Amino acid sequence: MKKVEVIYTPALLPLYDLKDKTVVVIDILRATSTMCVAFNTGVNKILPIASPEECLIFKDFDFIISAERNAVKVPGFDMGNSPFEYENPFLAGKNIAFTTTNGTKAIKMAKAMFPHRILIGSFLNISALAERIITLDKEVVLLCSGWKDKYNIEDTVFAGAVIHKLLEVYEMADDASFSAHSLFRQYQDNLEDLVRLSSHAKRFTSLNVQTDDVAFCLQQDIYNFVPELEGEFIVK
Amino acid sequence: MKKVEVIYTPALLPLYDLKDKTVVVIDILRATSTMCVAFNTGVNKILPIASPEECLIFKDFDFIISAERNAVKVPGFDMGNSPFEYENPFLAGKNIAFTTTNGTKAIKMAKAMFPHRILIGSFLNISALAERIITLDKEVVLLCSGWKDKYNIEDTVFAGAVIHKLLEVYEMADDASFSAHSLFRQYQDNLEDLVRLSSHAKRFTSLNVQTDDVAFCLQQDIYNFVPELEGEFIVK
Repeated sequence: MKKVEVIYTPALLPLYDLKDKTVVVIDILRATSTMCVAFNTGVNKILPIASPEECLIFKDFDFIISAERNAVKVPGFDMGNSPFEYENPFLAGKNIAFTTTNGTKAIKMAKAMFPHRILIGSFLNISALAERIITLDKEVVLLCSGWKDKYNIEDTVFAGAVIHKLLEVYEMADDASFSAHSLFRQYQDNLEDLVRLSSHAKRFTSLNVQTDDVAFCLQQDIYNFVPELEGEFIVK
Repeated sequence: MKKVEVIYTPALLPLYDLKDKTVVVIDILRATSTMCVAFNTGVNKILPIASPEECLIFKDFDFIISAERNAVKVPGFDMGNSPFEYENPFLAGKNIAFTTTNGTKAIKMAKAMFPHRILIGSFLNISALAERIITLDKEVVLLCSGWKDKYNIEDTVFAGAVIHKLLEVYEMADDASFSAHSLFRQYQDNLEDLVRLSSHAKRFTSLNVQTDDVAFCLQQDIYNFVPELEGEFIVK
């Protein structure tokens, strides 16, 4: 059987070998969920960028520029990181330069480590994601974006949910994958209750961020495509 | 309520502030369990050392020298890291210079970050540990030693077990503490089954290491003292 591993935060990436593996980047609240929404709306390409400063420059090159830091939109940018913003039909055919606190950083770090592919994972496309992983037929690393390099619940329980769909063809290769799967099995019927207990959901509440984002991002299988990194760009 | 946090591996230590907090170092298989056994046997002081090379020098200073790397005793040393070795009455009154793959490294790293106290935790003394934490009345960080900077199950489930004993006076301050506690609640009646599924227990089996070590290290409350770092030394 092929192996699946889980990395709980990008800070642990240097301990792992991603070469020739399928890497799934996970930032459930909210970057990888929001990217799926954007592609469903018809966005052409998304360019992940490390910092708001670097992202701003793409305004001069016919990109929509999107930036979130500490769960809120950065002043001076076109858009933030709420999935609802990306349902706007105006975005069809547009290209977006996108920087977020955790998710885009994880994508950039993983790309530097020569994986076979980088896939964008969310509950919104989880079954399509599992099928795509199985089709690619490589060892798999599920990379949680975490929060500023710390562990978070929502990315971990999603990693566990993906493992649950892979168990007929993949075996859990490390303790992190075992615990992620255990967390999913424990809370699979109460995912929203679990995620509302997470630090990040509490952060939303304290900031008066649109809290419907949590419920939105926990919907399963409303899309059947898997965004993927091609060169510098994420495409559908 | 005071806060309890869990750090899953020493690689994540730089993200945390330990200043004026009680830190519990956890290396269930086996360093912190074995240290408790040594003190029960009557060992005087344990000097944690980062590397075997540095540890060897203490042979010239009337120390017993102990070194484990990759779960086996390092050639040329008096002792390894199995708890059973430390039941030898010959050790009463002796001082030990001790280096292990994960546990002693975690102790040295934590000491450099100015905590209030560093306590040595294991299932063997878990209730005494919880009482000591409550008496000290500081914020608490439970530091899992992990395996070569990666997450492991046995240290995490122990962190969850400690949290379970603290919940009347401490609140979980991060997602890592929540998940550690969830893992404990899920497996509290099957701890040995869980830990036998861990990577490290499988490592023991593959190396023909004394596998009774797992069952030994999961015994609860056979000792009622808490070893603690004083200056460079761990003492009872």
